[in-house]
Amino acid sequence: MKKLINDPNRVVTEMLEGMAVTNPNIIYHKDFEVIARKNKPKKVGIVSGGGSGHEPAHGGYVGIGMLDAAVAGNVFASPSPDRIIKGIKEAHRGKGVLLVIKNYSGDIMNFEMAKELAEMEGVSVRSVIVKDDVAVPESTYSTGRRGIAGTIFVHKIAGAKAEEGGTLEEVLTVAQKAADNVRSMGMAMSSCILPGVGKPGFVLGENEIEIGMGIHGEPGIEKTNVKTAKEIVNILCNKILSDMDYINSEVALIINGLGATPAMELYIIAKEVDDFLKAKNVTPYKYFVGNFMTSLEMAGCSISLLKLDAELKRLLDAPCNTIGLKVGD
Amino acid sequence: MKKLINDPNRVVTEMLEGMAVTNPNIIYHKDFEVIARKNKPKKVGIVSGGGSGHEPAHGGYVGIGMLDAAVAGNVFASPSPDRIIKGIKEAHRGKGVLLVIKNYSGDIMNFEMAKELAEMEGVSVRSVIVKDDVAVPESTYSTGRRGIAGTIFVHKIAGAKAEEGGTLEEVLTVAQKAADNVRSMGMAMSSCILPGVGKPGFVLGENEIEIGMGIHGEPGIEKTNVKTAKEIVNILCNKILSDMDYINSEVALIINGLGATPAMELYIIAKEVDDFLKAKNVTPYKYFVGNFMTSLEMAGCSISLLKLDAELKRLLDAPCNTIGLKVGD
Repeated sequence: MKKLINDPNRVVTEMLEGMAVTNPNIIYHKDFEVIARKNKPKKVGIVSGGGSGHEPAHGGYVGIGMLDAAVAGNVFASPSPDRIIKGIKEAHRGKGVLLVIKNYSGDIMNFEMAKELAEMEGVSVRSVIVKDDVAVPESTYSTGRRGIAGTIFVHKIAGAKAEEGGTLEEVLTVAQKAADNVRSMGMAMSSCILPGVGKPGFVLGENEIEIGMGIHGEPGIEKTNVKTAKEIVNILCNKILSDMDYINSEVALIINGLGATPAMELYIIAKEVDDFLKAKNVTPYKYFVGNFMTSLEMAGCSISLLKLDAELKRLLDAPCNTIGLKVGD
Repeated sequence: MKKLINDPNRVVTEMLEGMAVTNPNIIYHKDFEVIARKNKPKKVGIVSGGGSGHEPAHGGYVGIGMLDAAVAGNVFASPSPDRIIKGIKEAHRGKGVLLVIKNYSGDIMNFEMAKELAEMEGVSVRSVIVKDDVAVPESTYSTGRRGIAGTIFVHKIAGAKAEEGGTLEEVLTVAQKAADNVRSMGMAMSSCILPGVGKPGFVLGENEIEIGMGIHGEPGIEKTNVKTAKEIVNILCNKILSDMDYINSEVALIINGLGATPAMELYIIAKEVDDFLKAKNVTPYKYFVGNFMTSLEMAGCSISLLKLDAELKRLLDAPCNTIGLKVGD
């Protein structure tokens, strides 16, 4: 196993330490694997998190205009409720806390348990569950669609609404609107190796790719031969458009690399997506191209579409400043 | 060969089209493979470029506070002088143009030829050559040290000085100061495949890494067994500090992924670099962690240190807004 690490059992801690020493706006609470915003204005707190290995998600989205705290589990494993409660307390400034949860059974269970416990301590907590992945209706680790890179849009929209002073119910409403209007789908060209395991979770043949694979290597729709960028975009975007009606709408897009995908390839994919959508009368309003929700060193990509209205556009364009996403004034 | 592409002969064009359709601040001149800034204030123009495959370098650094034009060659091949002249003309607004050139024989020859031709047409052109890679004193493609990720600092510093209204000579002086004060070194854990070739340029064994490898796969110092992040950081940083005296200085850092390196690993490296430098009385002032100067899907990293003074700090902190680097107000 070739990885730039010291000890497979310490990758999460050392990575979060690295995020904190290189970013002056966040602090790292080591005992709970929580990254929190350093200067917290009096506003609704936004908390997300989940298994590690998806960096910059989620610690990399803590900062102005996005999250107030991110709770990290071990690699591909949900954080325990005690860690999540710490995240909730870090984010709480008297106006309540919104949890943004990707739809995996472990995350749902642990975040909802932490929510109940925090409410017993008098903190108002609401939650939004993101289930943007249209690849499979049910999956290995989830009831219903999985949550993948579209989650970043929910962070962004909720964070912007909280930053401008929205109440907990207002932040919840707009975050839910974002979650309801985002769909994603991905594909993988290679597997990844969990540091604590030391070998790939699955193997793809030399000319084999997998359509619809999840961000933990969960099975997708089919294994198939290598295809062109155009063919792959057609498959992913047709499936997304068959799930939600984006025709005659403006959309924001995430062209997401899974960790080992060169920027060159992401931009070739982006061009194909742009051609595809314009031919279908879907209007790209804003693109985010890069590694936003990864699977360690997996090669491949996902495409996320958020259907926009005036409110979502405004919140999308509001400034944010985090490791993983910066939107300027 | 598994790549998200359509045609190996069209990767550069399609990638640059993708950059342009997803970024409203740049335009793409297809006949010359030039990415240029859309709104160009009357200021000194900054131009860089080189072979493709290093994305976001260099098209991804065109925008406010950095480059006015980037000229792309084919993958790992220098752009021809006619393309570079187009870049110079795109960047020229009556105040002259600075070329930032990585030290490779092909780039030097073609950029210098374009510079002469542009000067014959009445454009004042100066150039800075970046040779930050301390790994080897001479290399396959260069006389003297190679230019690698430290080049991004020269873009940033020169771009900020031009943006604030510096004259061509002032921009040249501060860009040369940045180039003189930056040192880098890298290592690779895997090779990369040129789209037009279809197989790796070299092969590393299952437990083998290469210290000091160049961004085109040029030989480094030694092939060795897999090491820990701490051991790798010690090797790279000791070599950098043996080349330039950073003790008791403030430094800016780029912890650069070569394309297939997970963010998790870059942050683990960043933490080790931080520990190493503080123990040596070198003070990290600002970190940039991510994929800034890549080698397609090569796995590995490089570390760049820029020794700072008050002027360089101010210019480093000035706003910029490009695909590859955003610094806020």
